[in-house]
Amino acid sequence: MPVVATKLDQPSTTYHVKAGWKGLIEEYKHYLPVTESTPIITLREGNTPLIPVSSISKMIGRNVKVYVKYDGLNPTGSFKDRGMTMAISKAKEAGAQAVICASTGNTSAAAAAYATRAGMKAFVIIPDGYVALGKLAQALIYGAEVLAIDGNFDDALTIVREMAESYPVTLVNSVNPYRLEGQKTAAFEVVDTLGYAPDWLAIPVGNAGNITAYWMGFCQYHSENKCDILPKMMGFQAAGSAPFVEGHQVLKPETIATAIRIGNPANWEKALSVREASQGQFNAVTDEEILEAYRILGREEGVFCEPASAASVAGVLKLKEQIPDNGTVVCVLTGNGLKDPDSAMKLSESGIRGGIKADLNEVARIMGFIS
Amino acid sequence: MPVVATKLDQPSTTYHVKAGWKGLIEEYKHYLPVTESTPIITLREGNTPLIPVSSISKMIGRNVKVYVKYDGLNPTGSFKDRGMTMAISKAKEAGAQAVICASTGNTSAAAAAYATRAGMKAFVIIPDGYVALGKLAQALIYGAEVLAIDGNFDDALTIVREMAESYPVTLVNSVNPYRLEGQKTAAFEVVDTLGYAPDWLAIPVGNAGNITAYWMGFCQYHSENKCDILPKMMGFQAAGSAPFVEGHQVLKPETIATAIRIGNPANWEKALSVREASQGQFNAVTDEEILEAYRILGREEGVFCEPASAASVAGVLKLKEQIPDNGTVVCVLTGNGLKDPDSAMKLSESGIRGGIKADLNEVARIMGFIS
Repeated sequence: MPVVATKLDQPSTTYHVKAGWKGLIEEYKHYLPVTESTPIITLREGNTPLIPVSSISKMIGRNVKVYVKYDGLNPTGSFKDRGMTMAISKAKEAGAQAVICASTGNTSAAAAAYATRAGMKAFVIIPDGYVALGKLAQALIYGAEVLAIDGNFDDALTIVREMAESYPVTLVNSVNPYRLEGQKTAAFEVVDTLGYAPDWLAIPVGNAGNITAYWMGFCQYHSENKCDILPKMMGFQAAGSAPFVEGHQVLKPETIATAIRIGNPANWEKALSVREASQGQFNAVTDEEILEAYRILGREEGVFCEPASAASVAGVLKLKEQIPDNGTVVCVLTGNGLKDPDSAMKLSESGIRGGIKADLNEVARIMGFIS
Repeated sequence: MPVVATKLDQPSTTYHVKAGWKGLIEEYKHYLPVTESTPIITLREGNTPLIPVSSISKMIGRNVKVYVKYDGLNPTGSFKDRGMTMAISKAKEAGAQAVICASTGNTSAAAAAYATRAGMKAFVIIPDGYVALGKLAQALIYGAEVLAIDGNFDDALTIVREMAESYPVTLVNSVNPYRLEGQKTAAFEVVDTLGYAPDWLAIPVGNAGNITAYWMGFCQYHSENKCDILPKMMGFQAAGSAPFVEGHQVLKPETIATAIRIGNPANWEKALSVREASQGQFNAVTDEEILEAYRILGREEGVFCEPASAASVAGVLKLKEQIPDNGTVVCVLTGNGLKDPDSAMKLSESGIRGGIKADLNEVARIMGFIS
């Protein structure tokens, strides 16, 4: 039974707006590989808040200013939307009828959302019996067709590559070059907001695509004199999944930070170049350090991120002595905490006190107003 | 054991940024009850995207333009952040040491996040054994203290009112007047983005605070000549929980749209005034219609909202014949779909096809490229 997209194209209704953020392609098209004829598929992604986190600054002292770039407020809840608006717009321009990826998380959600806005079908290939269904609920809500194959994740990757070579289906896994082009706009936003580039850009590292994209963005802005300095790129991996720190592939990566649980990163050479060019570092943080940063962000700052996102903050706290006096640090938070309700529940289990008498004095006593 | 806030105040680190959205109080302070001495507690809320939804426009035809105001992209995932930045800033200004609310959902999450940024404690009072813990995970992540009392929801409301009268604790339930002040900024953003007020503002109605706040915003902008017309305010309730449609309280409200499952709305008189002044309407939509709109938004537009949010779109589709030719309609989406993973899972259960051979021809056949 054929399930290839047969949706009609967008209607001729035109939507004129006077002001406001138009999505990252329209806002930064001078810096992106688009032309007047590229159909722009957007959910008004980007323009995410750069939030000061004073409790982290205070733990470091020496007038260091720390911000988080909260990319979990993108339309599907992660930074993947930045790459996907580009990848899907270019796929549409090239006449693709569908897109395909092997992904179990944020990539599949973003691919599905943008594909359906483009009137294209999104196919997600996963290994059968391997993936928790909860992770795919978002992609399914966006209308993706999920195919579970007999095989492992490598088999799924092989199939999606072969499909993209043989049929009018665009591969939107991380090998798609337009994704990094879209992702680099986060660096533009950081510089546009601060008015300068930070001393450190701290970022969780899995496939190392995002650290590569940020560096592309900072370099491009620097070459156009939009900023005077370039940041040190500080990549943080989970200790059980730290190929860049260990210097080799990790066969069985283990960490609660699932979004960066990658032992064989796709962008190995690029990441090493970024480290060298930026005089940056790769370091590992333990799961305990990641969870502690995750807790601090929630409890002290009111910012709820995916566990993997908190690796950037954990790393900055670990290496705080190295930050220059009066320096500025931006920590990238890649995903929304609402993406991972299980981790949130686990960490918040003990927070409810039950069996309290419905009485003013009793409640006032428990709240500490009377003794 | 005393648990009242003993956190230090914000450090003296100053965060100067050059550009970008500063949060709704800073952006709209001319229209809000703040002064130079009000401490502004912000997560850079507001500035949420107004997204064209062409599939809905097409279902209506006659060049009607439909947008969704996607307030699920606020920092804690719902429109409640708009009210809470105001309520918490004013509580801080007044010297409150803590805030309190009886809430099981979006209000408690927003209260907890903003309170902790202000260095205040948030207390959430709930009836013991009554509330699913998942709903409270977000508030707990933000460090709220949740007290479960022996009693029902009315007892919880009584306690929070008494506590606020007797102790330096600010009540941030919907009776807090600053909440509507903050929420009205969503109307400002709609007008600022479009350049005019829409013909219809369609909005889910529970307590009727948000419809009241939007109307305040439109009227204020109109009186300052920021827009020429005022929209018809079109409120939509779930059929099993529709006191404004039935004209009386609903004792046992029932609907899958939990965020608007309210039988005895707090803003009864205000809501009726808004309807009359705006020549608007209250109408009911069934759970099936709500879920169908929820599905369309996800599958056709790539927009994932809470089920209750979809009531606005369901209502517009139900009353589409009444929309003027060439008209503009804005549907408010109050919360992020990630807030309610259970509904998403239920609706997407059947979307995965398993047991597929890891073979190019087999996959191509299933995808419809060969027969």
